[in-house]
Amino acid sequence: MAEKQVYFFGKDETEGNGKQKALLGGKGANLAEMASLGIPVPPGFTITTDYCISYLKDRKISDDLKNEVAQAISKVEKVMGKKYADKDDPLLLSCRSGAKVSMPGMMDTVLNIGLNDETVLGLVKQSGNEEFAYDCYRRLVQMYCDVVMGVDGEKFEDAIDALKSDVGVKLDSEFSADHLRTLISTFKSITKEECGIEFPTDPVEQLWGSVEAVFRSWDTPRAITYREMNRFPHDMGTAVNVQAMVFGNMGENSATGVAFTRDPSTGEDFFYGEFLVNAQGEDVVAGTRTPQSLNNDGRHRLPDGSPAKDMETLEEIMPEAYKELADIRDTLEKHYSEMQDVEFTIQDGRLWMLQTRTGKRTGISALRIAVEMYNQKLMTLDQALMSVDPEMHLDQMLHEQIDPDAELEVLGLGLPASPGAACGEIVFTAEAAVIAAAGKDVVLVRKETSPEDIDGMNSATGILTARGGMTSHAAVVARGMGKPCVAGCGELIVNSAAGTMEIGGKTFKAGDEISLNGTKGHVINGLAPLVAPNLEDHNLTTLMGWADEIRRMKVRTNADSPDDAKQAIKFGAQGIGLTRTEHMFFGDERISKMREMILAENVEGRIKALAHILPMQQADFEGIFRAMNGFPVTIRLLDPPLHEFLPTSDMTEKIKSLAGELNVSYDHLVQRIDALHESNPMLGHRGCRLGLTYPEIYETQVEAIIRAALVVKGEGVDVQPEIMIPLVGTVKELANLRTMAVELADKLIKDSGTDLSYLVGTMIEIPRAALLADQVAEHADFFSFGTNDLTQMTFGYSRDDTKDFVDNYIRKGILPSDPFQQLDQTGVGQLVEMACQKGRTTNGDIHLGICGEHGGDPSSVDFCHRVGLDYVSCSPFRVPIARLAAAQAVIRNR
Amino acid sequence: MAEKQVYFFGKDETEGNGKQKALLGGKGANLAEMASLGIPVPPGFTITTDYCISYLKDRKISDDLKNEVAQAISKVEKVMGKKYADKDDPLLLSCRSGAKVSMPGMMDTVLNIGLNDETVLGLVKQSGNEEFAYDCYRRLVQMYCDVVMGVDGEKFEDAIDALKSDVGVKLDSEFSADHLRTLISTFKSITKEECGIEFPTDPVEQLWGSVEAVFRSWDTPRAITYREMNRFPHDMGTAVNVQAMVFGNMGENSATGVAFTRDPSTGEDFFYGEFLVNAQGEDVVAGTRTPQSLNNDGRHRLPDGSPAKDMETLEEIMPEAYKELADIRDTLEKHYSEMQDVEFTIQDGRLWMLQTRTGKRTGISALRIAVEMYNQKLMTLDQALMSVDPEMHLDQMLHEQIDPDAELEVLGLGLPASPGAACGEIVFTAEAAVIAAAGKDVVLVRKETSPEDIDGMNSATGILTARGGMTSHAAVVARGMGKPCVAGCGELIVNSAAGTMEIGGKTFKAGDEISLNGTKGHVINGLAPLVAPNLEDHNLTTLMGWADEIRRMKVRTNADSPDDAKQAIKFGAQGIGLTRTEHMFFGDERISKMREMILAENVEGRIKALAHILPMQQADFEGIFRAMNGFPVTIRLLDPPLHEFLPTSDMTEKIKSLAGELNVSYDHLVQRIDALHESNPMLGHRGCRLGLTYPEIYETQVEAIIRAALVVKGEGVDVQPEIMIPLVGTVKELANLRTMAVELADKLIKDSGTDLSYLVGTMIEIPRAALLADQVAEHADFFSFGTNDLTQMTFGYSRDDTKDFVDNYIRKGILPSDPFQQLDQTGVGQLVEMACQKGRTTNGDIHLGICGEHGGDPSSVDFCHRVGLDYVSCSPFRVPIARLAAAQAVIRNR
Repeated sequence: MAEKQVYFFGKDETEGNGKQKALLGGKGANLAEMASLGIPVPPGFTITTDYCISYLKDRKISDDLKNEVAQAISKVEKVMGKKYADKDDPLLLSCRSGAKVSMPGMMDTVLNIGLNDETVLGLVKQSGNEEFAYDCYRRLVQMYCDVVMGVDGEKFEDAIDALKSDVGVKLDSEFSADHLRTLISTFKSITKEECGIEFPTDPVEQLWGSVEAVFRSWDTPRAITYREMNRFPHDMGTAVNVQAMVFGNMGENSATGVAFTRDPSTGEDFFYGEFLVNAQGEDVVAGTRTPQSLNNDGRHRLPDGSPAKDMETLEEIMPEAYKELADIRDTLEKHYSEMQDVEFTIQDGRLWMLQTRTGKRTGISALRIAVEMYNQKLMTLDQALMSVDPEMHLDQMLHEQIDPDAELEVLGLGLPASPGAACGEIVFTAEAAVIAAAGKDVVLVRKETSPEDIDGMNSATGILTARGGMTSHAAVVARGMGKPCVAGCGELIVNSAAGTMEIGGKTFKAGDEISLNGTKGHVINGLAPLVAPNLEDHNLTTLMGWADEIRRMKVRTNADSPDDAKQAIKFGAQGIGLTRTEHMFFGDERISKMREMILAENVEGRIKALAHILPMQQADFEGIFRAMNGFPVTIRLLDPPLHEFLPTSDMTEKIKSLAGELNVSYDHLVQRIDALHESNPMLGHRGCRLGLTYPEIYETQVEAIIRAALVVKGEGVDVQPEIMIPLVGTVKELANLRTMAVELADKLIKDSGTDLSYLVGTMIEIPRAALLADQVAEHADFFSFGTNDLTQMTFGYSRDDTKDFVDNYIRKGILPSDPFQQLDQTGVGQLVEMACQKGRTTNGDIHLGICGEHGGDPSSVDFCHRVGLDYVSCSPFRVPIARLAAAQAVIRNR
Repeated sequence: MAEKQVYFFGKDETEGNGKQKALLGGKGANLAEMASLGIPVPPGFTITTDYCISYLKDRKISDDLKNEVAQAISKVEKVMGKKYADKDDPLLLSCRSGAKVSMPGMMDTVLNIGLNDETVLGLVKQSGNEEFAYDCYRRLVQMYCDVVMGVDGEKFEDAIDALKSDVGVKLDSEFSADHLRTLISTFKSITKEECGIEFPTDPVEQLWGSVEAVFRSWDTPRAITYREMNRFPHDMGTAVNVQAMVFGNMGENSATGVAFTRDPSTGEDFFYGEFLVNAQGEDVVAGTRTPQSLNNDGRHRLPDGSPAKDMETLEEIMPEAYKELADIRDTLEKHYSEMQDVEFTIQDGRLWMLQTRTGKRTGISALRIAVEMYNQKLMTLDQALMSVDPEMHLDQMLHEQIDPDAELEVLGLGLPASPGAACGEIVFTAEAAVIAAAGKDVVLVRKETSPEDIDGMNSATGILTARGGMTSHAAVVARGMGKPCVAGCGELIVNSAAGTMEIGGKTFKAGDEISLNGTKGHVINGLAPLVAPNLEDHNLTTLMGWADEIRRMKVRTNADSPDDAKQAIKFGAQGIGLTRTEHMFFGDERISKMREMILAENVEGRIKALAHILPMQQADFEGIFRAMNGFPVTIRLLDPPLHEFLPTSDMTEKIKSLAGELNVSYDHLVQRIDALHESNPMLGHRGCRLGLTYPEIYETQVEAIIRAALVVKGEGVDVQPEIMIPLVGTVKELANLRTMAVELADKLIKDSGTDLSYLVGTMIEIPRAALLADQVAEHADFFSFGTNDLTQMTFGYSRDDTKDFVDNYIRKGILPSDPFQQLDQTGVGQLVEMACQKGRTTNGDIHLGICGEHGGDPSSVDFCHRVGLDYVSCSPFRVPIARLAAAQAVIRNR
């Protein structure tokens, strides 16, 4: 490892830049970028992610690194005019993790490094504030012993509580220097007892202990789980940022805070933030003190009764520092062309920026920010489109909301930390959330959340906390997950031990039902009624309009009924890519005729039953065609194996009643059901195999499609039927069935005396069809990639059976993601690409689309764009997601 | 159609040749070839197969063809010195079909064309034989009205019988000219009545009627069925051969016969044939008269009591014609380098050859002919090797056979699932088979078999099932075991509860005796007499020796036990390509430990059960390694889903007893079994997926393999273990498991203080592994193509479920053959070829083989050779077939 591993940043010299996120982590790259912009950043240096990866192999710090770090520390000392851990005027350091992507709360931080019984005296001298200096020392010991030495943090909290009750104080800040010295001593004893070794007094040992602990925190179970949940690779590693300490807790002229350059919840263009006077950063996150609003605008927007409503703002207390911060806000938005999330500290009236990064936001907020920043010329059109995450942001917009007209019993009010509606049963622990969520919707209720709760938050449908602000852990994580959250609900009393909570004068226990309105901060009794989302939102329609102009691919929907089709049109669908006809057979009257058909002894019997089915199917198709006036409708002929329409052989009662209905003996029926049984129905007698074994079934369906099209055409509807033959694996399957369909359709059209165009094509869902796509294409007007089945067969995974080991594979990094959710581009994608290329060699006009569920997954949509598909098709609710993803694909691949 | 459609052949001018079989059909091409060789052939011409195909589209004869035919008839007239249908000295014509491949008896022939009430008088005059002339006329009317005009032939036979009884004669030849005139008149009346039109008297109309009838006969149902049965394409068409008639029935100096240039049954080098004096060809085939031996050698070889034993031979009756025929025999063998099957006619002492073609023969005969013709310098080594059909000829040689001369009562017909003969007492359960087999031969009769039946199948001498196809469990396992099997016998009704079966109108109970002919699919009443295969046969060993010298690919075997391994060595196997370890778990003691392992609640429980399994597996491997001294042994780690080792949830009694054994509650056990149930086990939790979920299983197996190898190496055995990881679909599956295997193996080897080389590789059986073979190959010492599963997933066919529609597909020409028997070279083969190429790009040393059942199929072996595999592996009994097929692949692709 001969390359440079340490990158310095500071006022006059900065070695990295904002583009080096992979090497320096997001935090490190942005610190370098801010320093270069002349923004006040405490000087420091970043140890690279490369070094982290190499460190984790043998867990040894090299001499090369030690030399590089020593040189960088000298530079920090020079800028700050202090020596590290000097006895008279000590420079102290912070040590923070920072991976390429943000993993909030997942990894470790150590502050105030360099303090010991000697250097603390220097800090006392320089600050003139004994309590401050010993509080810093106390924090170092507490953090170091927890994070680096692995002592259970609870023990320190207990010691603090014990001392508070001993000396009769309520807040940490009320401790005297003596109290703090006592605490430090207690902490050291606890550590000695737990670890068998002493808290290190050597500042150099402290620094390396902290750096190594941050590196190691990359591999903690919770960090691994977080990456798995977010599909982040495990081999990115984290950078370590070591910086000169600046203190927000040096007295009443000091403060610390976090801010968003726009409201992360609504997207409104005002400078949103919170701060605490005389505090270190961790105090803001911890939620034990109520943070104050950054500015007067923010305070006005607080709900009545909010504790901060009457508190002074930074704008009032420290107008100069606030002015500087507000200017930095403008600089950052202009520079990054994005809404930023910043951390700052004011030490004795002087502002220091500790972090900037793209701010997490809700769906509503993302849309408003994109539209407004484009209008303000802060974003280009491409940037505006790319700033909205189709999966996370749009998906939120498309979910149901609490009916605004319903009469609700609002139990209490909290902060509208993350918008949307959540209804479900109360759970009080993350573990309970994970277990219960398997079967039902649950709302996780906590005093406050911590990184240990991540799994539970992910499982819950919504999150409610008693403490914490808009930038508390619960709020930030919930917004990141797109889950509704009401945070800092002051009226809420959570009694975890008893498993109850009190709010609005009522007591609730686990299992009781509540609802959250995360948009308004309401906690509601019972399950609130929901209504469809508002698709008329101005920002949504504006952004989708931009997306529609830019995208090349059309977006269709998978819909099996006129209602679904109408819904999809509202979502912007440009046709139907997949109508499954089998769902139409499950109605009461229909299934009975279907069963009669299946159990018929001969072709005459089947034709007789099908004659009843034909008009019903025709009526279905007429409805869909009318709903899709002007758009193509792809109808897939019958696909599932016939036994799916029958009771299974262990359903004695059902079989008896069916036998009576069909007027056959019970034994005979059982025998027929047994004969249809398949060991692997996925690979069995289905799709076009049925169409070739029982031609009368497909003939009936083709007839129903063409007759329906002729009827609605007569009504003036622009009808564009596309007949899709499923599960083709050999060229002759398609050739034969196409001939059947075309002969029948042409005859019906000719007999009708009018004209009608229609297409006949096939699903590409069997690997062999992809391999022989050049030959298959000679008989197809279109290919529609059925990537669900194609994934099943290319991997050899049955979706019904493999969930457990696929989850296990993802956890172990064997699979990067669930291939049924994100298209496997390297394997299945190879077949898709091959089929596109081969298909075009023999049929230059062939129309290409996808109707597997991947059609609604943004990364898969990007792939579809790259291989040149003409359209994607997905479920109605994912149509807007696919529209935006298709536009982003154009931008990304331009 | 401007090309030449008519090819003349005759003494002085011949337009076609023997290579033009596709265009002229086999018969036409060989007639031209014989004519060119100066062999006496009645002059004539061939209308091409191309014309047939075009004719069948609109069923009209073009003017061009009429002109070409008229010119060709002129040439025939010139050679014969007669005019067609001349009143004084008529030239008559024959009209015979002849496709590229022989379809004996499938298509039509019309003889004596050109006769009518006038021309028959010319024939009387020229032959001086009124009975002969009217018999010819009678035959024409009978054949023409049947073949061309479609009258039911029975009606003519009835008329003949009626006349015989009227006039009191027994044989056709006893009819007087008057009788024959009466018959002709009767035939004409029948035809008029049946068809409404008259038998045509116009000779030109007769000729075209016959030609068109032959063309049309290509599309008769029986011809179509025959082609489907033999997998001949439907678009070859047939040629039509029109020739001058020569008459074997012109008197006592005329004759007709058929001959083989060598004995088709034994292969002995003597001129074998039969003839009839004063007869037309159809009389020989009809079998109403006893044919005489061609020569004295032939007569001597007849068994005593044969009617022809005392009859004169052609050699005696017509020594000159015989001498000429014997010379032609030599000419043909020398010219064709193959044993020939010929037809000839002697008209008034003059020999005419009507046909020559490669003669069909038995396995024994094929070997003897190949070896002797090579020794006689009549065949090159390549020709000798190519003259033996590995599938048809060798397979016959390798199984104990039912005495072909025995009289048998065939009760019913099933699929010839595994060749050979089995005789024994009926048993209906695997348990009964195990018990009974200790003392006697038993035939296991089941509706269908499952893995639970393995022990029983192993104990039985043959297997009969009512359900399932050529690739059903019973069939696959039986072939693997080399046990005769008749599968899917539709007529068989098994009543397990009553312990009886019904077939052929009889009811059998356990203990009754039956026999199976697995080569033919016959179920036979009682114990059929058997004859043993002779592996020491000189011709067999000679030919296999030649094959071994010429082939490039090695041939291994699939074997799961030391006994199988030893058997395979006898058949010439050069190692084991696939040892399935799961079969080893089905023994009584083992399955109990296996179940304990599967049902264990945690890893400790599994490890405890595995500790019992380890020494048993080790002992298995030791036995196999010893048997395979000096050859590589590929062992596949556990492949099937765990539920295959458990009773199914409807087996109440078995579960109760298992629950007792394992000391758990019945309900608990049912719950565990249900939890392991899979909808599509083929695509479920199996193969390396198990190895990653339960690492301890694969670790135990690797340990057993390496420990066994170390033990037998200590005994001086040359041991070459190859560890094979099944069902790999992602690179990391293999990478992780390879690391596990190598670390464990290296540790064990190091601890043993000796050294041992071993390989670690993978099956390529998941399409995705083939697509990513370049990456997979980086972690594999070898690829073994598991083409059974690869075929299942590439086609999306479950072998257990698709028999019915696959058979239907083959009948309809949608599939050329069963892809589980013959490798689908265009689809699955593409993946195999891709994997070979990609694999070699990243791992130039990678060893490539196949262990799917295709490894024993000759056409698939040819493919394996072409894509450059290093070896094929197949069941022991197919090893010689694969050895010869591999040699033929070299010759064919040179």
